[in-house]
Amino acid sequence: PLHKAAPIENRLLVSLADLYKGVTKKMKISRETTDYSGKVSNVEEILTIDVKPGWKKGTKITFPEKGNEAPNMRPADIVFIIDEKPHEVFIRDGNDLVVTEKISLVEALTGYTARVTTLDGRPLSLPINSIIHPGYEEVIPGEGMPIPKDPTKKGNLRIKFNIKFPSRLTSDQKAGLKRLLGS
Amino acid sequence: PLHKAAPIENRLLVSLADLYKGVTKKMKISRETTDYSGKVSNVEEILTIDVKPGWKKGTKITFPEKGNEAPNMRPADIVFIIDEKPHEVFIRDGNDLVVTEKISLVEALTGYTARVTTLDGRPLSLPINSIIHPGYEEVIPGEGMPIPKDPTKKGNLRIKFNIKFPSRLTSDQKAGLKRLLGS
Repeated sequence: PLHKAAPIENRLLVSLADLYKGVTKKMKISRETTDYSGKVSNVEEILTIDVKPGWKKGTKITFPEKGNEAPNMRPADIVFIIDEKPHEVFIRDGNDLVVTEKISLVEALTGYTARVTTLDGRPLSLPINSIIHPGYEEVIPGEGMPIPKDPTKKGNLRIKFNIKFPSRLTSDQKAGLKRLLGS
Repeated sequence: PLHKAAPIENRLLVSLADLYKGVTKKMKISRETTDYSGKVSNVEEILTIDVKPGWKKGTKITFPEKGNEAPNMRPADIVFIIDEKPHEVFIRDGNDLVVTEKISLVEALTGYTARVTTLDGRPLSLPINSIIHPGYEEVIPGEGMPIPKDPTKKGNLRIKFNIKFPSRLTSDQKAGLKRLLGS
């Protein structure tokens, strides 16, 4: 059997929104082909990658023997490896999406409504009915990433909170807090 | 050269206080010895381990060829591996000691004094002069573990805080908080 060249790996950077919805990527490659007489010519080819909803970083798509042709060699495979563009709002955690809301201590204690725009552009308004303590997580089922095996199912959206404490308080404020919340 | 048996490893569990102060451990072992005539007898022996202040989990002390004697074999080494007993109050992090204080939200906002007893029994009283926000860490240099290379030096004591939020608030309390802290 002819020796086969090592696979050529390329990183394919996909946005989280495209991984959410799925996307078709067309990649133009240029490869050398050799005809029966041994004459080498450059050919351009379009490889189509059908990124499915919910695909994860590290997913590999292989186009067998799409590398350069050379005498007495089998052309290399061309491999694309999915990578994830960092998103402004969401961090992906497996099938979940995680968003961290920065809120004030007063909002944490007296009430807060999280407003999140999903990766397919729907505005969500999520009133939090409990007191938000550090480590509190609000979980919204079905608003995470699609699950590739069954894209009708989705992971969770998890909202975390970064509670901004006042950096200083007057002695009047401190006395008031002790009175209100008990010492 | 004679074949040497594989080392015999034993875990030596040491309390954090003993690792702080240093301690001498005497380990009784029983080993078979063979005299010139080939007669096997059991001998008890005491191995002394001088645990130095600041030793870490994983430190190995080797007693060469203290295993059983057998004809045509070199006795195995006996190895003790230091392990750390979990402590009620402190978690060790390298040369640092970490303690987590559970405090109320009012204490976090209006003032708190941490009281810690060191591993050598000294009471420390540590008033925190800032507002304690989630993630706040008070660092007390020199109150951590001794550094084995130079036991006159010590790591830090780091105090973390677990701020207990009220689980419910009345609408009067909420209104009061908004008034006091601004909305």
